[in-house]
Formats: sequence, structure tokens, C-alpha cells
Amino acid sequence: MNIAVIGVGLIGGSIGLAARQRLGATVRGFDSGDGVLDAALRRGALDHGCASAAEAVEGADTAFVAVPVGTLAEAVDETLAAAGEAGVVTDVGSTKRAVLADRADPRFVGGHPLAGAETSGVEHARPDLFEGATWYLTPTSSTSGMLYERLHRTLGGLGAQPAAIDAGAHDRLMASVSHLPHVLANVLVSQAAAAVSDQREPLPATGPSFRDATRVAGANGAIWTDIYLANRDALVEGIDQTVRRLREVRESLAAGDAGSVSGWNAAAADDRRRLLEAQLAGGPVHELRVSVPNRPGVVAQIALALGRAGINIADMALYPAPDMSEGVVALWFGGDEPADRAQALVADLGFPVARP
Amino acid sequence: MNIAVIGVGLIGGSIGLAARQRLGATVRGFDSGDGVLDAALRRGALDHGCASAAEAVEGADTAFVAVPVGTLAEAVDETLAAAGEAGVVTDVGSTKRAVLADRADPRFVGGHPLAGAETSGVEHARPDLFEGATWYLTPTSSTSGMLYERLHRTLGGLGAQPAAIDAGAHDRLMASVSHLPHVLANVLVSQAAAAVSDQREPLPATGPSFRDATRVAGANGAIWTDIYLANRDALVEGIDQTVRRLREVRESLAAGDAGSVSGWNAAAADDRRRLLEAQLAGGPVHELRVSVPNRPGVVAQIALALGRAGINIADMALYPAPDMSEGVVALWFGGDEPADRAQALVADLGFPVARP
Repeated sequence: MNIAVIGVGLIGGSIGLAARQRLGATVRGFDSGDGVLDAALRRGALDHGCASAAEAVEGADTAFVAVPVGTLAEAVDETLAAAGEAGVVTDVGSTKRAVLADRADPRFVGGHPLAGAETSGVEHARPDLFEGATWYLTPTSSTSGMLYERLHRTLGGLGAQPAAIDAGAHDRLMASVSHLPHVLANVLVSQAAAAVSDQREPLPATGPSFRDATRVAGANGAIWTDIYLANRDALVEGIDQTVRRLREVRESLAAGDAGSVSGWNAAAADDRRRLLEAQLAGGPVHELRVSVPNRPGVVAQIALALGRAGINIADMALYPAPDMSEGVVALWFGGDEPADRAQALVADLGFPVARP
Repeated sequence: MNIAVIGVGLIGGSIGLAARQRLGATVRGFDSGDGVLDAALRRGALDHGCASAAEAVEGADTAFVAVPVGTLAEAVDETLAAAGEAGVVTDVGSTKRAVLADRADPRFVGGHPLAGAETSGVEHARPDLFEGATWYLTPTSSTSGMLYERLHRTLGGLGAQPAAIDAGAHDRLMASVSHLPHVLANVLVSQAAAAVSDQREPLPATGPSFRDATRVAGANGAIWTDIYLANRDALVEGIDQTVRRLREVRESLAAGDAGSVSGWNAAAADDRRRLLEAQLAGGPVHELRVSVPNRPGVVAQIALALGRAGINIADMALYPAPDMSEGVVALWFGGDEPADRAQALVADLGFPVARP
């Protein structure tokens, strides 16, 4: 099997590693960045570094275009122009309507793996990056069924779970769960920064809610300006909805309507639970809060004990004390029975555990 | 020294533990919850469990009212009525304007320790909960200077850093850094839940930005409805500002104005850095991203190595891979020199490390 990777960063590099190690594929790659191909070859992500996208795509069964959103359209066109009749071309861009707009080529399928947002660069590439990850594909009526099936099978071979979705629905979903949280993080930090300088007050060590909500504020500008603009239609709709929702709760607050505020908060708690449950497709989600000393191996000890008992941790968050001497680990579990067993197991390990 | 604690939960219990262990104080407590006093006595948070607030406050030099915001005003009045002329009374409520509004008593000083938001209950109380934590005090023109000084000294003895702030400024600051993030978390989850059910799409395993931003969504309704309402004036102002800011970026997006979107994002990055720097009162803040295998002790190994080198971790976040086999630890450091040393040190430990 011959694979081409155009753009060998974290995603492209991980595709190369997984394709070589898990599928025994021969991987040819191209990247315009200084020294990137050398680094990718050293890391074992490629068999051959090529001088152009056209050279990399020669003889490829499947070509992945994994360049930043800003240069994506151009790179896809270049790759399609060079690919043979029997080659399928896909991209990994985080928005899909724009790249599909003018491309009715039966060989092109839009794609978006949900993996690897936290780091970048081929040095962080790893062969299991896509293990268990949703990989959205956005086939259209002009997509070749045969080529789509091949791409689907290849992604499964990389460890991912391919899922077909309408390109518009994909972009609206991403606006809700990724782009809008980034916008709100930006708004929150700028507003807090303004409040601090208006009030000439020293900023306290902010609590976990602010830290968590603003961790992605001002995320990599070179990447995110392109992402915001590529998905601007869905994002503008999302912002309008957010403004409507904020106005509703503002009215309840201004009126001092405790019943309405309480109902609104309870609905959010239900929605959070439903979202976690939808992700797990399992039972109801429960949270445990475990107080732990910060000595070597404590978090791993808990995670491993739960793993050995076959209990899956749906989500976790660490809240270290300022001096790192102690902290709280929040753990989320799907289903009553796993949560009960997890609680008993963690208590047996000797840690105070509570359900908030 | 005699200390009274009215309401012996996480905060009240930790005050009791710290006062007994660090100040050698005698601590008398009252709590209306079933079995709470017994649990507090077992935990060593109190010397005496009392049948009423009035009984607990008898002979106290300092009385802490640590009940939920909803019953705070009543409990403060009861405590003031029973306290002697020479006793100082303070509360630990998360908003300050409301509790001060009708209280010009020279013995009362509003207070708010920034600690312990993640768990509740005396079973999680610990003597070092306030170690290094900001503890806001809101003295007014009618506050007794002598009693204020005693309270300030007592809080220092508990390990906290007392800081005087105008009650209105306090509430606006808390709206920015705590209450508004909670409101936005609620809005985000409800909007995402609506998007998923509108589009009949399975929800993907959402990325860290959504998980982080919505972790507090629907937080404990019994507590948070009261907090929102107690601070509703400042919160309504904060929401209005957020709406204005959202409209601005919406216009830039709708117009496809890349320069404006990019400038807005860069300003947020600057604001985040400034906020972190303000907290640290040190140099510029740098982020490192470390790829780690999830084997026992890895995170602790890094934290301890940095600790031994005298490098302070300003903030950290763990992003485990779905299967928990690997992950990324994001670490923030104040100042160029500590960040450079941390990067070299972590690299020496054999972990791939990058500055995003």
C-alpha cells in the first residue's frame, strides 16, 4: 500500500507512523517547512521525503493533505492534479464546507480527525494518535463509492473510527464544541484583564473555573485566525445563539428570579450529563472527587487500579493545590455500576472520595 | 485564643484544623447539618461542638461564619447578637456587597478566602487549605481598626494572605473571574446539547477546549443559584460586557476581516499572559507542552524534578489520550529564566517538550 502525506506535522507525521507500523505501508511525504522532512525521516514517519506534493503523490493509493487551513485549498488542488485516477485524496482540516465548496471531484473526500489539538510538529507525532478517535468524513453525492470505502478501511487501519457526516452539520458541530469555546475563552480573559486594570486591584490566584475556561485563550494565532474564518458562517450563527442565551439568563438575574436561575442551572447540569452520556453511549455519568497527596505515582496508581478493574475513566481533571503538596482529582464514569465500583476501589486505596 | 466556627463544612472545618494546629487555638463550632459536628470532632477540626451559634460564639476572640450564601445574612446577625464587644465577626461568602449592605457594626468585617472550590464537606477539610491563598477582607469606614488588625493577624496565622478590597470591586472581580465563567459554561453545554439533538449527529469525543470550558457547567445548584443572585448586579454588568465583546468579534467574522480577527486573538493572548503575570508578580509567562507516557509517577517525576530545582509551576493541565496510555502535560512558568531551565530539565528527563 502506498500512502502520500502532504504536510508532515503532528497529524501528517502520525499518519505516516501509523501507516508504516500498523499497515506496513510505504509512505512518501512532502513538507515545505525547513528541516521538517529530515525530522520526519529520523522519526520514522516517512519512507521517502519528496521535493513536491506532486512527487509525493506519485503512485499513491491514498493521499492525506495535512497542511494548515490557510493553504489547504491550494494544496488539495495540487494533490488532485497530480494524483492518478485510482487514488483517493482527503484532507484533515478542521472545517469542511469551504474546502468542499468548489470540489466535485469523485476522488476527493473531506476529512477531519479529532485528535492532537494540544501540540504540534512531527516531533510529537505518534503511531497511536488516532487510536479510538472519531475521524469525520464528509462524502458528497459525487464521491466515488469505491474510493470512499478504501479511505474508510485505511482510517480504521490507523486505529480511528471513521464517521460520515454532512459537511454543514460538521461545521456547526465544530462551532459548538470547539470554535465557540475558543471565542468565549478570548472574551473572558480580555474582560477579566480589563476589570483588573479598571479596578487597579491585584488579580487573585484565580480559581479552577477561570483557569479551565481560559486555557485556550489566544491560541496559536497563525492557525486559529484561519480556523475562525474558514468556519465563520457557522461561528456567527453560534455567537448569535450565545448572545440570545446570555440575554435570557441576564433577564432572570436582573429580575432576581431564583426559580428561573435555578431551573436554568439545573438544565445545564442535565445537558452536561447528556453530552457526556452521548459520548459514552452508556449509562448516566457520575463524578467522583478524590483528595490526593502529590507524591509520585498517586494519579497513576488510581488510574491503573481502575484500569485493572476494567473501569473506564470518561474524563478526568487535576486541581493541584498552589504548593503542589495536595490536590483533588475529579473523575467521571459512565454508568451507575462502574461509578459505584470506582468509588469503593478508590476508598480502598485510602483516599478520601466524594460525589459532589 | 478562642475561635468560633459557625458552619463546619470544608472551609469552616479547615479553619478549625488550621486554628488548632497552627495557632494552638481552642475552637468551638456549630453546624445545623445532621452528624456534621460529630464528623468535625472526629476529624479534629473542633474542640467543642455546640448546640447553637450563640453558644459557639461565647468568649470567642474571632468568629467565622462559614454557612452557605443563602443563609449567610441570618447567621451573621445571630452571631453578632451573641458575640461580645471585643469579638470580631467575619464571613467567608463569595460575594460581599449584599452581606455588608445593612451592617455598619464595627465588629463585622466581610471576608472571602479563595480556596477550596473543588470539594465540600468537613471530611475534605485540611489544615493547609489556606496556605498561600488570597483571603479578601472588605473593611468599611465603620470597621474597628483594632478588630480588623486582629482578624488580619489571625488569617496570616492560618497561612493565608489577607488582602483588603472594596466590597463592590470584589464583587465585580469575582463576577469576571468566577461567576461569569460558570454562566458561560452553562450556555456552552446547553447550546452544544441543542446542536447535537437538532442535527441528530452522534457527539464526538469533544476536545479539551470544550471539556475544560464546561467542566463547571450546572455546578451544585443549591450553592450556585444563591451565588448568582447574591452577585446579580455585578454579574448582569459582566454579561452585558460579554455581549458587547461577542458582537464586536461577530462583526469582524461576518465581514471576513482577517486582520481584525487576528488582532483580537493576539490581544487575548496578551491578556492571558498579563493575567498570569499579574498573579505571579514575576516575569513573562511561558508555556511548555510535554508528551508523557501514562506510567506510574511520570507527572510527579516532572513536578518533583522542577521542585528540586526550585522552579515554580504557575499552572498545569493534563490532557490524557482517550486510552490513558499517553498524554500531554501543559506547564506554565513565570519568567524567561525558569522556563528555559524547566525546558532543559524536562528534556533531560527524556520527554519530548515544546513551546507552543
